[in-house]
Amino acid sequence: MTIQVAVCGPGECTAREEADAREVGRLLAERGAVVVCGGYGGVMAAVAAGARAAGGTVVGVLSRADRWQANPDLSIVIPTGIGEARNAVIVNSGDAVIVVGGSWGTLSELALTMRGGRAPVVQLGGWRVLDRDGTPLPGVRHAASPRQAVELTGLWP
Amino acid sequence: MTIQVAVCGPGECTAREEADAREVGRLLAERGAVVVCGGYGGVMAAVAAGARAAGGTVVGVLSRADRWQANPDLSIVIPTGIGEARNAVIVNSGDAVIVVGGSWGTLSELALTMRGGRAPVVQLGGWRVLDRDGTPLPGVRHAASPRQAVELTGLWP
Amino acid sequence: MTIQVAVCGPGECTAREEADAREVGRLLAERGAVVVCGGYGGVMAAVAAGARAAGGTVVGVLSRADRWQANPDLSIVIPTGIGEARNAVIVNSGDAVIVVGGSWGTLSELALTMRGGRAPVVQLGGWRVLDRDGTPLPGVRHAASPRQAVELTGLWP
Amino acid sequence: MTIQVAVCGPGECTAREEADAREVGRLLAERGAVVVCGGYGGVMAAVAAGARAAGGTVVGVLSRADRWQANPDLSIVIPTGIGEARNAVIVNSGDAVIVVGGSWGTLSELALTMRGGRAPVVQLGGWRVLDRDGTPLPGVRHAASPRQAVELTGLWP
Repeated sequence: MTIQVAVCGPGECTAREEADAREVGRLLAERGAVVVCGGYGGVMAAVAAGARAAGGTVVGVLSRADRWQANPDLSIVIPTGIGEARNAVIVNSGDAVIVVGGSWGTLSELALTMRGGRAPVVQLGGWRVLDRDGTPLPGVRHAASPRQAVELTGLWP
Repeated sequence: MTIQVAVCGPGECTAREEADAREVGRLLAERGAVVVCGGYGGVMAAVAAGARAAGGTVVGVLSRADRWQANPDLSIVIPTGIGEARNAVIVNSGDAVIVVGGSWGTLSELALTMRGGRAPVVQLGGWRVLDRDGTPLPGVRHAASPRQAVELTGLWP
Repeated sequence: MTIQVAVCGPGECTAREEADAREVGRLLAERGAVVVCGGYGGVMAAVAAGARAAGGTVVGVLSRADRWQANPDLSIVIPTGIGEARNAVIVNSGDAVIVVGGSWGTLSELALTMRGGRAPVVQLGGWRVLDRDGTPLPGVRHAASPRQAVELTGLWP
Repeated sequence: MTIQVAVCGPGECTAREEADAREVGRLLAERGAVVVCGGYGGVMAAVAAGARAAGGTVVGVLSRADRWQANPDLSIVIPTGIGEARNAVIVNSGDAVIVVGGSWGTLSELALTMRGGRAPVVQLGGWRVLDRDGTPLPGVRHAASPRQAVELTGLWP
């Protein structure tokens, strides 16, 4: 079965995050992975554009029940109609999850993946989570570049 | 954007329903449509096999959060983890919905599509719904063959 | 733990269905059961009003993420935000499910309950489901009055 | 309509978190608020026990489709069957959300509430979220005691 990687990030992002997401999409597509994302703007649109430009397949798992405002680079659209609960569906769909940049919705996706414990999580930029003693929580892998983010998934050893 | 057709049917089905579902899958794949289904056995496995054999793309929208018992012919797997509520996701993902055979889960999918009012519903075999006066409910299109089922979606005029 | 009964029915209903739903709500409240419903108009509003007037507790499991258009007789509001997928949540919440009247949304709830196989389903009026040979599907209990609907749940032997 | 407060926290918690959650439950029940929680162990069980002992009403919004391992102090049980996606339902059900202690599931609830932007979020202990520059994210209200947590909701001015 084809490898699937969920890529999460804010709908409004910086130019740097957009460039990073586009590069992540390209690298995943080159490795033959299907990209799963939230299907709207910002990081979601950038990773989709990057993967599509490299000939890849991109699935958009939308919060809405219709295709309104879905980005144009999706190969397949899943309009769940379940609102933000669809964040759980996105992360369940990834053999690994790559997080680019930070937002509350993005953080919920990172947290749901760690809660599930099924897939490795790689973070590129974005927010940091500390426990009550101020110690960074273990488990999330931190990357310094799109290339390292893809490598740290461990899916292409 | 690629046309997507949701195909619904029981996880345990008759040989006739299995053959019909396989043929529906083949015909959809030949027309370039992506098939969306529930991803497990019976009609779901048959439509996936038919589409895959014809070079098509098949998305399995699973009830479970993992890939346990997903059928082997899925191109893309969405392990929603939302249980039977995923039936709403399947039907939202179709530009049309084709129902092959009958079961309570299948009927819930037919009913949710009609409730949404967004996509045409075509039924091949399966159960019948009557209103309180014994009159068949209007709106569902009834097909006598896989080919007619695909035609009645109205997606390829 | 308190007995919970899910009561399902169309958002737009006849005067007869409204009266029936109100009476079902009253009878359930008198027996100390919590009523779970979809929280909007029609049968949902009537069963809530009937239960509330008899001093009962009513939970509205809404499709929307906010309380917009929720009926005023709900004791507790669960704005799920998961759209029509919330129908699965309503029926999972009942030790029995009573269906008053018919609509596509209502039928999806009846079908999801039968699919789950956990709770008895009683139907008062509404639509009929036949298998491909025209035989009524077994399993659903048919009541002729609100009182019989409550009795047929089997929860108060 | 009755005020509803969602209380979130880990299923496995420290003695301090358990005592805090119990006290939060008691204080909310004394103010007449309905407590909504995840319905299982740890903080969820403690807040339910505290509220119940003070005569309050507690709703457990479960991930599972049945009542398995639900805690015994729930007044009302909503077995959603939608897995961890139910975290979105819990937080949508609160006029305010109080977070006691930290875990990945708990963090997903905090993040989903902040994403929704509808309800104030108060945190008692637990994890900290910093942006990429190491600055604590604004918006979450931090309490030093159960009493302050309830006050900071702003629901009882």
